[in-house]
Amino acid sequence: MFAEIITVGDELLTGNTVDSNSAFIAQKLTERGYWVKRITTVGDDVEDIKSVIRESLSRKPEVLIIAGGLGPTHDDVTMLGVAKALNLELELREDALKRIEEFYIELYKKGLIDDPKLNEARKKMAYLPTGAEMLNNSVGAAPGAFLIHEHTKIFVLPGMPREMKAMLENEVLPRLGKRTFLQKKLLAEITDESKLAPILNEALKKFNIKIHSSPKGFGKYIGIILFGESEEEIERARKFMEEKGIKFEEV
Amino acid sequence: MFAEIITVGDELLTGNTVDSNSAFIAQKLTERGYWVKRITTVGDDVEDIKSVIRESLSRKPEVLIIAGGLGPTHDDVTMLGVAKALNLELELREDALKRIEEFYIELYKKGLIDDPKLNEARKKMAYLPTGAEMLNNSVGAAPGAFLIHEHTKIFVLPGMPREMKAMLENEVLPRLGKRTFLQKKLLAEITDESKLAPILNEALKKFNIKIHSSPKGFGKYIGIILFGESEEEIERARKFMEEKGIKFEEV
Repeated sequence: MFAEIITVGDELLTGNTVDSNSAFIAQKLTERGYWVKRITTVGDDVEDIKSVIRESLSRKPEVLIIAGGLGPTHDDVTMLGVAKALNLELELREDALKRIEEFYIELYKKGLIDDPKLNEARKKMAYLPTGAEMLNNSVGAAPGAFLIHEHTKIFVLPGMPREMKAMLENEVLPRLGKRTFLQKKLLAEITDESKLAPILNEALKKFNIKIHSSPKGFGKYIGIILFGESEEEIERARKFMEEKGIKFEEV
Repeated sequence: MFAEIITVGDELLTGNTVDSNSAFIAQKLTERGYWVKRITTVGDDVEDIKSVIRESLSRKPEVLIIAGGLGPTHDDVTMLGVAKALNLELELREDALKRIEEFYIELYKKGLIDDPKLNEARKKMAYLPTGAEMLNNSVGAAPGAFLIHEHTKIFVLPGMPREMKAMLENEVLPRLGKRTFLQKKLLAEITDESKLAPILNEALKKFNIKIHSSPKGFGKYIGIILFGESEEEIERARKFMEEKGIKFEEV
């Protein structure tokens, strides 16, 4: 179960804003047992967004979360980039339009804006890639989008941290299942590499855990992350593997 | 003049650490007139590091800055990833070894460590890709590396923010030239797209400026960043282009 994150925004590439969104998203995905393998940041440029999405999809992550660039200004072109990457059109969505209209009426009633009417800029946020499921923005105007491409679940979220976090919690995580996982990071000493894989596979069958492994260092160790629903289950799996001959070191 | 940044570290992909390094580096590069087009974060995995460096080099940035994963532990495999990406070997460097030795003797004299001797872990940091120039780490043990691949200047820096910042200031920026640039971001309305490029080119010849442009929005505007050594020079260039028929909007 591996995941990738793409954040979009010129302000991230000029260093004017520190990208805390990707860390927040990464943490939530990791808690749910996803292994985030790559985070990429590109600017508000349709072609760059298209390219980076296609590159990510070619690596076949189970989940791809894209955040930023959904607002009303000319710079906000992420939905167009998503559509182009997937060879889809952008289409005006009545459900999104209605939601955006309601949002601005609410702001108007609160005295925060002078005019509640939909103008071109506001209407722009109601365009989603064909076939996308709309993700509700509970604290802002711009809706998100959910699409499935081959085996990848793609979520497109706003870049304002408040809006991103609300949409991640309310719309994304429920679509990824509700289980959360604890993690234990270990280094497995490789005395005989060919022994390792069968033991990991045995442990996967026997216990309610997930295992991520990646080659580390100068060939002596392999990094292992054990994910489980309880510390007890992780410990049982670890002991089982140790009894089978794997030597672990704590990271 | 475009640049890319790669940050390395599992702690960034689990969300345990917010990647403030890339924002710092991006800011310094932007001030020097580089356009940072992409930031990528990967974990402490040799193959992932190798891949992401090769992908970046294929886009031919003028500058590629890589930060993180130079320390003494098994997890720190960035130099190996750099060497593999460039089809180079890692070689033990006497200049680096001497510098590392001195560093630990200093720590020992200060009473911060029990043993000043070089062990395998400390010695590991003295391996640099063949032909690399060593970059001095004025506040830590691990040296950095400077390599040139085709037209790309590659800098490899430590991930500890204090060490990264010192090496960036003292070793990287002087190798990029000392000029700093002011920036002005504008949107150019496209009344006739074919007119735009020749006018930009004329301005580039006539004034001491750089121009970055990228397509924005739904086709009506192109994002323009004017870089210049003074506000006056930027203003002169802007007025010149306006007189030639480009309509600008402030961002």
